[in-house]
Amino acid sequence: MTASSAGAFISFEGGDGAGKSTQIKLLADAIRDAGREVVTTREPGGSPGAEAIRKLLLEGSADKWSPVTEALLMSAARADHLERIIQPALARGAVVITDRFADSTMAYQGLAGALGEKTVIALYDLVVGNRGPDLTLILDLPIEEGLKRAGATGGQEQRFESKGAAYQEKVREAFLEIARREPDRCFVVDASGSAEKVAARIRNIVEKKLPALFNA
Amino acid sequence: MTASSAGAFISFEGGDGAGKSTQIKLLADAIRDAGREVVTTREPGGSPGAEAIRKLLLEGSADKWSPVTEALLMSAARADHLERIIQPALARGAVVITDRFADSTMAYQGLAGALGEKTVIALYDLVVGNRGPDLTLILDLPIEEGLKRAGATGGQEQRFESKGAAYQEKVREAFLEIARREPDRCFVVDASGSAEKVAARIRNIVEKKLPALFNA
Repeated sequence: MTASSAGAFISFEGGDGAGKSTQIKLLADAIRDAGREVVTTREPGGSPGAEAIRKLLLEGSADKWSPVTEALLMSAARADHLERIIQPALARGAVVITDRFADSTMAYQGLAGALGEKTVIALYDLVVGNRGPDLTLILDLPIEEGLKRAGATGGQEQRFESKGAAYQEKVREAFLEIARREPDRCFVVDASGSAEKVAARIRNIVEKKLPALFNA
Repeated sequence: MTASSAGAFISFEGGDGAGKSTQIKLLADAIRDAGREVVTTREPGGSPGAEAIRKLLLEGSADKWSPVTEALLMSAARADHLERIIQPALARGAVVITDRFADSTMAYQGLAGALGEKTVIALYDLVVGNRGPDLTLILDLPIEEGLKRAGATGGQEQRFESKGAAYQEKVREAFLEIARREPDRCFVVDASGSAEKVAARIRNIVEKKLPALFNA
């Protein structure tokens, strides 16, 4: 396997309404145009088993599961997703782009939620270890704008969106904190402006961090 | 709350076909006859959320989930079961008797299975901590006899029964090892002979270990 055909694992993170889906599609198309296989996926879910767990997580009232139970279910889904989809794709040299990964657990449950960082880290070590993303793009947007956009698209993740602006502000701060902790892996992207402008910012980061993707 | 009305948490463990269901019913009746509320339950499952997770665990082929994913799902179910059923029952002074608990994870997945003890212990610390059983009765039976009895009752747990006698022997050894490690909590019960004889052995242990249950 040459350097240019080695797999690469990219995650998109950020609050709802930041434009992750659109940007993932644009980046995936650009990398495919450069001749690489790209697998796009999402969490929670991404594999048949993990999607079944996702259904359990999202159905019912917001307090259906306690923070610990929710984190264990998320982690089970993540383990399945990693083993069945992400790792096999990387092994055959594909580029994997996921809409949310473990940083969402740290942001929503560990830093903004009631679970605590220690439990999040213990589960990360158990499930992900050194199999995490090579590059994480954190789409950052003022809360009012994100809520407006998320409302306009009528997102499926009502449970996670229903907690109000103060909570969303904590989540935004949490993602910025994660970026400060892991500056080699995490890049904060200004998600305001047109989709094309944001895509250009992302392309700029990816070309610097993973130059082989565009030089196949 | 007087000493005699404090809750007590009892688990039954052992291979399939050892007679756990019958013995749980007999012990529950005896404790109810002594004037106490008894909640009988089971794992995986025991609460609405945990039963939904149990369905995910048991449906599909035996290799549907990897050992890590299976353990995370088991742990999620256990967290829900503890929070929604066991802890509230203990708090109101009831006696909780469960058909399987965390020792089954250690026996089937940690000691006889591929998961390893370290992961099992990490998940135990996360989910159970100091909220484990006061008393564990391990029903022990020669493998041939257990398989014969389990076959006769047509158990629902085909997935866990389908691995053959050598695996069942490893599971039996694993439960005996757990009993050696925690002699204050775990008691091995000879499960051969009539249900009445086994019930008398169990009653003898419970009366010594938790005398308040029969002296309300």
